[in-house]
Amino acid sequence: MNPALSLIFLFGLVLSFAASAQALTDCPHGFTALGDKCILVSREKKSWYDANRRCRALKANLLVFDSLMDADQMKTYLKRQGLEFDRYDNALWTAINDIGRNGEFIVEHTGNPMPFDNWEIGQPDRAGNQDCVATYGANELRYHDFQCDFKLMYVCIGWGSAIAKIVGANASALPEFEERVTMFVYEEMIDGKKLTEIINETHENVKYLKGHKLPPNVVAVPDLVEAAKNADILIFVVPHQFIPNFCKQLLGKIKPNAIAISLIKGFDKAEGGGIDLISHIITRHLKIPCAVLMGANLANEVAEGNFCETTIGCKDKKYGKVLRDLFQANHFRVVVVDDSDAVEVCGALKNIVACGAGFVDGLKLGDNTKAAVIRLGLMEMIRFVDVFYPGSKLSTFFESCGVADLITTCYGGRNRRVSEAFVTSGKTIEELEKEMLNGQKLQGPPTAEEVNYMLKNKGLEDKFPLFTAIHKICTNQLKPNDLIDCIRNHPEH
Amino acid sequence: MNPALSLIFLFGLVLSFAASAQALTDCPHGFTALGDKCILVSREKKSWYDANRRCRALKANLLVFDSLMDADQMKTYLKRQGLEFDRYDNALWTAINDIGRNGEFIVEHTGNPMPFDNWEIGQPDRAGNQDCVATYGANELRYHDFQCDFKLMYVCIGWGSAIAKIVGANASALPEFEERVTMFVYEEMIDGKKLTEIINETHENVKYLKGHKLPPNVVAVPDLVEAAKNADILIFVVPHQFIPNFCKQLLGKIKPNAIAISLIKGFDKAEGGGIDLISHIITRHLKIPCAVLMGANLANEVAEGNFCETTIGCKDKKYGKVLRDLFQANHFRVVVVDDSDAVEVCGALKNIVACGAGFVDGLKLGDNTKAAVIRLGLMEMIRFVDVFYPGSKLSTFFESCGVADLITTCYGGRNRRVSEAFVTSGKTIEELEKEMLNGQKLQGPPTAEEVNYMLKNKGLEDKFPLFTAIHKICTNQLKPNDLIDCIRNHPEH
Repeated sequence: MNPALSLIFLFGLVLSFAASAQALTDCPHGFTALGDKCILVSREKKSWYDANRRCRALKANLLVFDSLMDADQMKTYLKRQGLEFDRYDNALWTAINDIGRNGEFIVEHTGNPMPFDNWEIGQPDRAGNQDCVATYGANELRYHDFQCDFKLMYVCIGWGSAIAKIVGANASALPEFEERVTMFVYEEMIDGKKLTEIINETHENVKYLKGHKLPPNVVAVPDLVEAAKNADILIFVVPHQFIPNFCKQLLGKIKPNAIAISLIKGFDKAEGGGIDLISHIITRHLKIPCAVLMGANLANEVAEGNFCETTIGCKDKKYGKVLRDLFQANHFRVVVVDDSDAVEVCGALKNIVACGAGFVDGLKLGDNTKAAVIRLGLMEMIRFVDVFYPGSKLSTFFESCGVADLITTCYGGRNRRVSEAFVTSGKTIEELEKEMLNGQKLQGPPTAEEVNYMLKNKGLEDKFPLFTAIHKICTNQLKPNDLIDCIRNHPEH
Repeated sequence: MNPALSLIFLFGLVLSFAASAQALTDCPHGFTALGDKCILVSREKKSWYDANRRCRALKANLLVFDSLMDADQMKTYLKRQGLEFDRYDNALWTAINDIGRNGEFIVEHTGNPMPFDNWEIGQPDRAGNQDCVATYGANELRYHDFQCDFKLMYVCIGWGSAIAKIVGANASALPEFEERVTMFVYEEMIDGKKLTEIINETHENVKYLKGHKLPPNVVAVPDLVEAAKNADILIFVVPHQFIPNFCKQLLGKIKPNAIAISLIKGFDKAEGGGIDLISHIITRHLKIPCAVLMGANLANEVAEGNFCETTIGCKDKKYGKVLRDLFQANHFRVVVVDDSDAVEVCGALKNIVACGAGFVDGLKLGDNTKAAVIRLGLMEMIRFVDVFYPGSKLSTFFESCGVADLITTCYGGRNRRVSEAFVTSGKTIEELEKEMLNGQKLQGPPTAEEVNYMLKNKGLEDKFPLFTAIHKICTNQLKPNDLIDCIRNHPEH
């Protein structure tokens, strides 16, 4: 390890529309990750004022397009959710308005003019006091001015993790790090200028992290190999489906004694079935150790500066201090444990338990039963790690990645919410994903499926009655109210 | 241990008005324990229909008096809460009505006539369609008929634990127990008949557990020594302030190899300060081992038959199986651990953490921060047991008495609720206890005080920054928003 470590911050700003883009950003409840953004599409029509209020209450803003590509991608995404915006009464509110400014249209949350002029031809026509801007169009989403009390659907946009800010500030402040943090950014043109150049001049990712100033020592680099070649620590924050391709490009081009850390939540499906851990994939491809960072740290609350904790799992203790120094901030406290696999597995398994908690809520079985399901879920998480990733410590499950993340997921969280609706509505998980998550996939049911595959292979379904029952309920092999029968004779009793 | 064990069920049906009567019954949210009853006094005036609906929604019933003493005690209790019922517009709805029955007044939830004729002279006068009965009076609470749509205050009455039913059924079904379970009941006269005789004839505690049939092998005995003399297992479910007097009567009069189990939640104050565990008090006085039963098992949900778990802490492993057999039921699953002290201490310390969770809710600090406070609280519980009751296992904190009870208490529970109001209202804990709990005392703040006394004595306040901050916030030495500063550099990070 060099006395001064150089860093590459692989903040993969890939606007991906894949379901597992979720891995990139842990969005607040009700929001769906879309690359580094967290978006919420409301089908309920409201006045501009109410829509704006609702987004602000969710610590988010109404939609605004940064580029034509941006507008196109949004259109593609929304279309895939079965939404069409080809008629004025199907329009979506944007953040743009000239309320009280008479002709001077600005973006509500920045106070600046709109970044990309996307007016329909002939708009704004300002007929009849039309102070608020919505977007629709059969081919392209274009801006039109509307009366603000017209009722329309809307999209709220929130922002992802502020972790680049923490890392940049720490690299700058602490002597053990080289000051410069390289951040790989997919190059694109914004108003005829390269995105990386804009970021490096303005210290603001105008495209994806607008309004969040990056420390000036975080340097955007458009070439992955160039960005990574001198780094001692590679930080992975990309959707997991990009990992193999990234690794392929990087293999042999990085320092041989570099280390990686993955902030990616979720898991990959192993060939032939079962769970493949992201950190294992990185290590397998790049032949370097890979730590993980997990915990009860919802991105929007981290960005707001609310106090939270996180857990770093790092097999090799000698990297513990440097990783802690890299991520710890005044409001973001880090505990390092060496149980890397357990830390990462907790992040996947908690979503299964959250489905169980949601079923209990849907069945109105009360606080005792919910507490029992959460506790038995935790016991199965511990046992699962013991069977498939042996050598872990019980104390790891008391860390933020364990009990704390499990609690927040079982009380908030979309797995819980959709599972509750699964019971009360009688609809299928797929129907609910379409209605409640705009077609994005829940993580709990597929994780339960892969886990069940692993348990079946070892003849262990009976030893994990909660995981097994949740999988069978999700796949309609059991009814939700069979859940309790399945755990009545749980081996933990 | 005899092959067939005889049992005494010390179900102490003492209608006590002391604050710590809470120990007897773990009431649902919003309810206050009053002996074996759970009561909720609503100061919000509603029609009889709405009041009845509200009580039913809370799985409780409107008030009805069983005896003059009952009415007197209620009057005394309510008066102590600053409530007067001396005028008709301050009256309280009862469960009694003749809606659709024309002159035949019955108790809504039993369908039977009122158990105790408490009409005011000249009532019911049935003037103007008065089908619903309320109670008021300057000296005694008496029944008066009212129009049902008149808006009055009301009291909902819920019932405590159904554990006597479980124990009775198990003693009857399992060969290792003698069939007969003796239940000590304070004798009183009900309509000229002894309560114990009524119970033994009807198998229903008409006074305190109406509507819950006891198994016929549970025999009520009015003499404590007589009830206990042949018992191998003594089950304590009385408010803790009765323990010393009970033990004094029993000392030397019980089998020398008997064992005790305490279902009493809460703690006693040690002489000179600090926590004294109820099981230690019983052992000290009676010179017999005492196990404990604790967990996330709210009484009303147990009575409803909802699935829940509990933890028995029993130092001597040889009693583990028999205690489990005694309490386990289809919907009530028992885990036995030998960490008796840890099990009992968890039940006290969780209430401190719940105050912290309430402060976070009041400060609107979000899910991350709340999860961090719950987790750090759990870590301090573990450390506290390690310091003051050494030799415990980490795994005990994963039992129902630990993580599960902590979760339910930090999400529901009155410590959380009042602590939230403490932040948002700016009122003192005492004022809020008066307003929200009818003057009953919270358990969190006094536990925090005793714990702080113990920590101070050992110079350990710094090692327990959360417990310390919560105590200081409750006693106005710190402001609620100092909470996070206090845990920012928590030793667990």
